[in-house]
Amino acid sequence: MQKKGKDRYIQDLGEFALIERLAGVLGPAGQGAGQGVIRGIGDDAAVLQNSPGTRLLAACDLLIEGVHFDLNLTPPRQLGWKALAVNLSDIAAMGGRPRWALVSLGLKPGFTVGFVEEIYAGIAALAGMFGITVVGGDTCSSPACLVIDLCVLGEARRTEITYRSGAHAGDYLLVTGKIGAAAAGFAYLSAEGQQKIKPESAAELTWAQLQPQPRVKEAAVLVRSGLIGAMNDLSDGLASELHEIVQASGCGAQIRAERLPVSPVAVSLARQLGADPLHWALYGGEDYELLFTVPGGKGSPLQLRRLSRTLEKATGTPLSVIGRVLPPAAGVTMIDSSGATKPLSPHGYSHFEK
Amino acid sequence: MQKKGKDRYIQDLGEFALIERLAGVLGPAGQGAGQGVIRGIGDDAAVLQNSPGTRLLAACDLLIEGVHFDLNLTPPRQLGWKALAVNLSDIAAMGGRPRWALVSLGLKPGFTVGFVEEIYAGIAALAGMFGITVVGGDTCSSPACLVIDLCVLGEARRTEITYRSGAHAGDYLLVTGKIGAAAAGFAYLSAEGQQKIKPESAAELTWAQLQPQPRVKEAAVLVRSGLIGAMNDLSDGLASELHEIVQASGCGAQIRAERLPVSPVAVSLARQLGADPLHWALYGGEDYELLFTVPGGKGSPLQLRRLSRTLEKATGTPLSVIGRVLPPAAGVTMIDSSGATKPLSPHGYSHFEK
Repeated sequence: MQKKGKDRYIQDLGEFALIERLAGVLGPAGQGAGQGVIRGIGDDAAVLQNSPGTRLLAACDLLIEGVHFDLNLTPPRQLGWKALAVNLSDIAAMGGRPRWALVSLGLKPGFTVGFVEEIYAGIAALAGMFGITVVGGDTCSSPACLVIDLCVLGEARRTEITYRSGAHAGDYLLVTGKIGAAAAGFAYLSAEGQQKIKPESAAELTWAQLQPQPRVKEAAVLVRSGLIGAMNDLSDGLASELHEIVQASGCGAQIRAERLPVSPVAVSLARQLGADPLHWALYGGEDYELLFTVPGGKGSPLQLRRLSRTLEKATGTPLSVIGRVLPPAAGVTMIDSSGATKPLSPHGYSHFEK
Repeated sequence: MQKKGKDRYIQDLGEFALIERLAGVLGPAGQGAGQGVIRGIGDDAAVLQNSPGTRLLAACDLLIEGVHFDLNLTPPRQLGWKALAVNLSDIAAMGGRPRWALVSLGLKPGFTVGFVEEIYAGIAALAGMFGITVVGGDTCSSPACLVIDLCVLGEARRTEITYRSGAHAGDYLLVTGKIGAAAAGFAYLSAEGQQKIKPESAAELTWAQLQPQPRVKEAAVLVRSGLIGAMNDLSDGLASELHEIVQASGCGAQIRAERLPVSPVAVSLARQLGADPLHWALYGGEDYELLFTVPGGKGSPLQLRRLSRTLEKATGTPLSVIGRVLPPAAGVTMIDSSGATKPLSPHGYSHFEK
C-alpha cells in the first residue's frame, strides 16, 4: 500500500507536486511581495529589483552529505537552517543586507516528503527572521548523497561594503560573540552521552553547531558606525580568517590568547574531554561570528567603547578586542597565556587533502 | 611517486591551490574588469553593479553525475560548457542579458587536476562568448558523485522581460532553430558505432547533446522587436514548456506537427534506429531553443516575416511558426500529419518518478 501525506516517498509524489508542496512550506518566505521580488519561483529565472544606489552581493555554499554533515547528527530542519545561515553570514561579512535565496536540492529517492519539508521548514524559519525570500532554485534526484546548495543575493551601499583588504597597520582587531562553541558542539554531538553536561549547556552546544545565528543585524550596526575596515566571518576558523584578512590587506597581525572570547560551555566540555578549547576557538570554524578591524588612533578607545555599547544594546551581542593589525614584516602571531609570542598558522579546514 | 602537473590528484594539491589554478584557467572570464564586477572571486561574497534602470534575473541548475550526465559519454570540458549553457538559456528565456556566474563544484578525490581544469575550460569558453564573468562559487569534495551547480545572474530592462504568463488567445506560437537534435544526440552517443552516420552529422548530434548553444543573442534580437509575449526555453521539451506557458497564461494552444522544425539529422538517425523523431522533438528536451508568442492581428503576417528576417540576418538562426494560442477551453492539442487533432500531453522529464 502506498503511504500517504508526509510519509510518502518523494518518488511516489514526483518533482512538480513536490515543488508545489515545498513552496507551501515556505509560506511568506516564498512570496516576498513588496520585498523587491517581481517574480519568484515559477519561471525560467527570478526577477528582482535591488534598491536604488545599491551594489549587489552574491555568495553560494555547497553542502554534501558525508562531507559537510551527517544525517545521523543533523536533523533536516537544522540542515536547511544552516545551509541558509552560512550564506547569510557571508553577506553580513561584506557589510550587506541579504535579500533573496535560490535553493538547489539533490534528493535521494528514499526520502519521505516530510523529511524534505523539514529541510524547507528550517530554511523558512531563518528566512523569516531576516526577511529573505526564496525566489528560485532546482530540485532533482541524487542517487548517492543529499546535496544542498544555496545561493544568496544581497545588497549594500557602496560606502558600507567591507572587504577583506580593508585592514591597515595600527587597526584594532575585534570579534563578535563567543568562539569555539560550534566545534565544541560537534564534539558533543559526535560522542553524546559520554559527557556529563547540564541540559542548558547541551542545548547551547547543539545550537551552536546545528543552528548558528548569522550576524546580519550585528553587521548592519557595525557598518553604520563607519568605523569598520576589513571584515570576515569565522566560517573557516579565526586563525584562517585572520590570515585571509592579513594576506588581502598586505599587513601583519598579533592577537592575545587571553583576549579571545572563548565560549564558557566549550571550556567546560573541553575540560571533560581533555580537549583544548583554544584549539576549537582558533581552528574549529563554523562559529559564524564576525572578525573585523577598526582604525587605531587617538580617539579609538572611546570609539571602541561606544561601538561595543551600541552593538550590545541593539543586538545583545558582545564585542571583544583581540589584538592589533601590524606592518607586514611582523607576520601573524599570538601571545599565549604565558606571555610568549608564537607564530599563528592558518591551519583551517581544506577540502580534498588527506 | 607523486604525479605532477595536470596528472596530479586534487587531494595532493589541496583546496586553495586548486582554486588558484582554476582561476587561472578562467582567465578574462574570471576577472571581468569593467563588466560590473567590483569584486569577484576572493572575498566572502562577490560585489556587482547592475546597469542603472535594470532588473535582476537569477537562475540556477544543479547537475549530478548519474542523473544528468554520464562521465563515460560527457567529456569534462563539455560538462562545464553545458552547466553554464543551461543557465544562460534560462536568462535568455526571460529576455535578459546574462552577466555573472557562481560555480559550485563537488569533486571526487580521485579526479586529476587536469580533469577539473577541463571543466573550467568549458565554462571559460562559453563565458567568453557572451561576456560572462565567473565571480564566485564553492569547491569542495564529494565522496560519491560529481556535483556541479551554476547560478547565473543577469539583467533586463523592465519592459523587455518575457514571462511565461504573457501569452494571449490569438497569439502566434514560434520556435527558434531546430528541435529534436539533443535527444537524437543522446541516442547516438548511447549506442555509438551501431549506426551508419556521416561524420558531419555525428558532429552535429554530439554538439547538440553535449555543447548546446544558448540563444542569448537571439533573445536579445527578439525582445528588441517589442513583439514577444510569453517565452520559455525548451529545456524540458516542447510539449512540457508549451504546457507551462498555457498554464501560466490561462489559455489553450494548438500546434501543427508538420510545422515543427525537426532537425534533419535527428530524422535521419531516427530512421536507422526505428525511433520517432517527432517524439524526440516534443518530449526529448535539452534543445535550448526558445518557444515564444507574438500577438496575432491584422499586421501580424508581415511582422512575423520581418522578425524572422531580422533574426536570421543577425544570428543565422531560423524562426518557425508552429501554431496558435487559443482560449483556455481549447486545451492543448496537436494536428498530426494525417490532419487529426489530438490532445498533447505535457509528459516531460520529471525527477524522482519511477
